[in-house]
This record gives sequence, C-alpha cells and structure tokens, in this order.
Amino acid sequence: MNLKPLHDRVLVKRVQEEETTKGGIIIPDTAKEKPIKGEIVAAGPGKVADDGKRIEMTVKTGDKVMFNKYAGTEVKIDGEEFLVMREDDILATIED
Amino acid sequence: MNLKPLHDRVLVKRVQEEETTKGGIIIPDTAKEKPIKGEIVAAGPGKVADDGKRIEMTVKTGDKVMFNKYAGTEVKIDGEEFLVMREDDILATIED
Amino acid sequence: MNLKPLHDRVLVKRVQEEETTKGGIIIPDTAKEKPIKGEIVAAGPGKVADDGKRIEMTVKTGDKVMFNKYAGTEVKIDGEEFLVMREDDILATIED
Amino acid sequence: MNLKPLHDRVLVKRVQEEETTKGGIIIPDTAKEKPIKGEIVAAGPGKVADDGKRIEMTVKTGDKVMFNKYAGTEVKIDGEEFLVMREDDILATIED
Amino acid sequence: MNLKPLHDRVLVKRVQEEETTKGGIIIPDTAKEKPIKGEIVAAGPGKVADDGKRIEMTVKTGDKVMFNKYAGTEVKIDGEEFLVMREDDILATIED
Amino acid sequence: MNLKPLHDRVLVKRVQEEETTKGGIIIPDTAKEKPIKGEIVAAGPGKVADDGKRIEMTVKTGDKVMFNKYAGTEVKIDGEEFLVMREDDILATIED
Amino acid sequence: MNLKPLHDRVLVKRVQEEETTKGGIIIPDTAKEKPIKGEIVAAGPGKVADDGKRIEMTVKTGDKVMFNKYAGTEVKIDGEEFLVMREDDILATIED
Repeated sequence: MNLKPLHDRVLVKRVQEEETTKGGIIIPDTAKEKPIKGEIVAAGPGKVADDGKRIEMTVKTGDKVMFNKYAGTEVKIDGEEFLVMREDDILATIED
Repeated sequence: MNLKPLHDRVLVKRVQEEETTKGGIIIPDTAKEKPIKGEIVAAGPGKVADDGKRIEMTVKTGDKVMFNKYAGTEVKIDGEEFLVMREDDILATIED
Repeated sequence: MNLKPLHDRVLVKRVQEEETTKGGIIIPDTAKEKPIKGEIVAAGPGKVADDGKRIEMTVKTGDKVMFNKYAGTEVKIDGEEFLVMREDDILATIED
Repeated sequence: MNLKPLHDRVLVKRVQEEETTKGGIIIPDTAKEKPIKGEIVAAGPGKVADDGKRIEMTVKTGDKVMFNKYAGTEVKIDGEEFLVMREDDILATIED
Repeated sequence: MNLKPLHDRVLVKRVQEEETTKGGIIIPDTAKEKPIKGEIVAAGPGKVADDGKRIEMTVKTGDKVMFNKYAGTEVKIDGEEFLVMREDDILATIED
Repeated sequence: MNLKPLHDRVLVKRVQEEETTKGGIIIPDTAKEKPIKGEIVAAGPGKVADDGKRIEMTVKTGDKVMFNKYAGTEVKIDGEEFLVMREDDILATIED
Repeated sequence: MNLKPLHDRVLVKRVQEEETTKGGIIIPDTAKEKPIKGEIVAAGPGKVADDGKRIEMTVKTGDKVMFNKYAGTEVKIDGEEFLVMREDDILATIED
C-alpha cells in the first residue's frame, strides 16, 4: 500500500530512539518518552492558496525531521505505524 | 438516490476492514476500531474563494482515501452509510 | 408571507421521512431521528465578499438538499416550520 | 432622539406577534416566545472593508426582517425598546 | 492630562442618565443600570490596514454615541472616569 | 543591557503613581491598583504584513502611554521591571 | 546533529542566569525562575505568505533574544536542551 498525502501534509515514519541508557540498562517501554524524530516517507504537493495556486512544500521525501510529540494522526499501513501531519507541524529538519 | 456534494465536500464510502485476526479469530464488532479508509463516490466542484473563483479539487471519484476517524457527517442513502466530509479532512490518497 | 433569505442564506423545507419500518410498524415520533433532507424554497443572492462583489450561490430554489441535523435556525411561517441556514451548511444536493 | 447605526448595523423595532391562539384564548406573556420579526427603522452606511471602501448594505429602512431570537443588543429610546444588530444577524427579509 | 486614543480607539465620557423616575422618586445608585450613552471626547486616527493604509474613522469628537454596557476599558483621568473602546464597539450615534 | 523590541512590540516603563491620597495618607502597597501608565523606552520597527512590507509604528520612544492593566509580558533588565507589549495593547498616548 | 528550523521558526539556546544572589548565596535550582534569555543558534528561512513568497526573518543566528517563559517546544540535541519557537514568540533582541 502506498499513501500520497494531500495538500500540505506529509507521511512520517518515527525514528526509533536508542533503547539503552549510557550505563547500558534497557529502559522498559513505558518509561520512555515517545520519539519525536522521524523521516518523511511521502510529501503532499503543497496547499492550495486562496488564489488557487499551490504553495510549494519546503520539505521532501527522505528529509529527517523533528516534530511535536502530539503532532499528526497515527495511521497503520501494512501493520507499520506512521504519522500524517501538516508541514507546519514540523519544527525543523535534521542534518547529521 | 444520487448525492452531489457541495463546494469542497466529498461523499465517501467506508472500506470494511478484514474481520479476522492473523490467527483467524473473528473479532466481535465492538472490539474493532472503526475503519478510516474509504473510497470517494462523489466529489464537489471545489470551494469558492473570496474572489468568486472555484478552487479545483485535488481528489476525484474513485480515489481511495484515508481520513480522520471522526471526520465528516454520516449520511444514510437507501439504507447504506456514507460520510460527507471536506476535502481537507482527507489525510492522503491510497494507491495499492 | 414570503421570506427572502439574506446574503448566502437559504430557506429550507424539511422533507418528511417515511413513517413505517420495512415491516410496516409505525415508529412513534420520539423514536425517529429528525430528517436531514429538505428542499430549498428560497435562496439568497449570495454573500458579499470583502471587495464588495457578490459571490454567486451554488444552490437554487427547488434543489433537494441534505444538511446537518443541527444546521440552521427554525422559523415558523404561517404555522409551517422552515429552516434558514447558510449555503455552506448544506452537505450535498440530492438527485433522484 | 434619533439613532444612526454605525457600520453594518441596523436598528430594529420588534413586531408584536398576535396575542390570541386560534381558539381566541389569550396567552399570558411568559408562555410566549419572544417574536423574532421586526422592522428596520434605521440602517448604517455599511461596513468598511480592509481596503477602506464601504460595502453597501443589502437591507434598508422600512424592510421587514426575521432574525435570531438572541441577535443584537437591546437599547431603549424614549422608553421604547429596540435592537441594534449587524446586518449579518438578519436571516431574511419578509414580503407580505 | 490629554489622551490621544491609538488606532481605531475612541475616548468616551459616559452620559449621566436622569436620576429620578417619572414619579420623582430618586433611585439609589445600585438599583440603576449603568448608562450606555456617552460622548466622544477624543478619537484615534483610524486603524492601519494590512496594506499599511489607515482606515478613516466614522465617528469624531463631540459625537454622542450608544455602546454596549461592557464595552471598553475604564480609565481615570484627573479623577474623572472615561472609557477607551474601539470604534466597532459603538452601536450607533445619537442625534437629538 | 539594551532591548530592541521585535516587530510591532514596544518596551514600556511603568510610571509610578502618586503614593499619597489627597489627605496625605500613604496607601500601603497592596491597597493600590497597579499603575497603567507608562513611557515607551524602545519601539520595534513595525510588524511585517503578509505582502512582506513593514507597517510603520504609530508610537515612538518617549511617548507616554496608557495600557490595559494586564497587557504585555514583564521583563527584568538590570533589576528594573519593564513590560513588553504589542502596539495594539496601547490604548492611548498621553499629552500633559 | 544539526537542526534547520522550518519556516519562521528559530532554534534557541537558553542562556544560564547567574546562580548567586548579590550576597553570594547560591540559590537552589527549584527556587529560580527559568531564564527567558537565549541565543539564536539557527533560524528558518521565513514563513511562506499566501501568495507563495517567503517573508524574510528579522532575527538571525547569533542574536541574543528575550522570549516568553513558556514559548516554544523543548528539543534535546546530543543531550543538550534547546527551544524551537516561532519568530513571533521572541519579544526583543538584546544588545549588551
């Protein structure tokens, strides 16, 4: 299955954070904050302004992004969890 | 009966999700989340901007879409349930 | 008495739904949902945009429409009940 | 005293509804809904749009109108009650 | 002290209503509604629209006005009470 | 330390009101309303409109102003208290 | 790791306030208000207006700024805490 986000929305795959502390202890799942980093796996064509023109997207597929913990809507595709959010919910892109 | 959605609204038929788990057990109806996939069975002509021009729709009849679980208004046509929602309530189109 | 809706408003007469179930049993009045279908009996000239031009209406008198159950304001004209609502409260037009 | 409504406001005099039922029984005052019909006794010059131009009014003095029961602000002029409301609070004009 | 209201604001002096009923009985202060008439003692230059142009005021110093009971902010100038409100809080101008 | 307010913000120094009543009695600090007069000690360059142009400020450094008691954000600069507020929170300028 | 804020957002590093009072007593951490000064370590390209053009940023990397205590979203980069906020959450720039 293939999702094409509408307007200014993007489909984001959360990036799994490291699961051990510096001392090597594994933190049980409920004690961890949900990660707020992800990678854009699909981006919409941009939102349509009131004059009918599309406003180009700033982010694109493959971009690594940081977003608010509660941003977007969770969707399940073939058993895997993704988030659909608006571009404006993205705080920043990440460059390694 | 035939519904023609107004402005930027679409008429959506929910897609029934698979009713068995991987182990083949039938899940009773109340234990399942309502599906959030559907197919557009009718699309409006687009909303009218403040300058009087219509803004063209991005989705069209036949598109498979994903939408927020609480999006839209339920309508019953000849005993069958549909949803009328605005195009902007659609998160993404689905391509198989 | 004759009502001319203002701006983008329409005057709608609710359509009475069938009062028997398929088995022919009459449902007492309180057990039925109020119908959300109607017919436009009068339409306003369209709303005035910020640049002073009127935006033409999409619906017109005689159109059969579907609308949200709580849309509009009830008005009584010569003992009969009508609804005045904005065009944007109409979900779709109905064609038989 | 003479009131000139500002911008897109109108001064409305409520029309007193008939006080007897069809059988001729007088309904005590508290059992009646407040009327929502009225006559425009003064209309403002229209609201000023963001580009500085006035948007012409659709209603004018003498128009009989129907409005939401809770629309407007009550004002007393020489002991008589009036309502000042925005044109957009008017649902429709009435023609006999 | 002299106040020059900013943007689309006006400085209003409340007009004291008559303090006796028709029968000549003096109503104690707490039993009276606060008056909602006033006189504009200073008017701002008008608000600045998004294109940077000022939108001219409709009211001017000396205008007698009627306004919502809770409109504006009370300010005390040299012991006397005034109200600063936006022009749009004024319902109507009064002509005797 | 020197603060340059951003956009349409101003930095305001509250003016201390007289601390004695007419009879010369000193009012303890908690019995007094916080003053709502102040002097602008720095003004931003104006806010940027949607077309990218700055909208010029109406007030300037040195202006004495009156503002809502709860307007703005308190900031401490070198131990002294100031307020940062938007120009639109200013009700009026004061001329002695 | 390198963060590039999106649109009109900035990445801010909080500036640690002095930790002793004038008398030299160290204030325990919970008794201190969180600082509201910071330095911009990265700035977005500016937000996209409705006509598709970017609106230039007023602040830039290296600017020392003052902002509302609750402004922005906390992000952790390589163990260090930062804030991502919109330019409009910045109250003023600081010049020493």
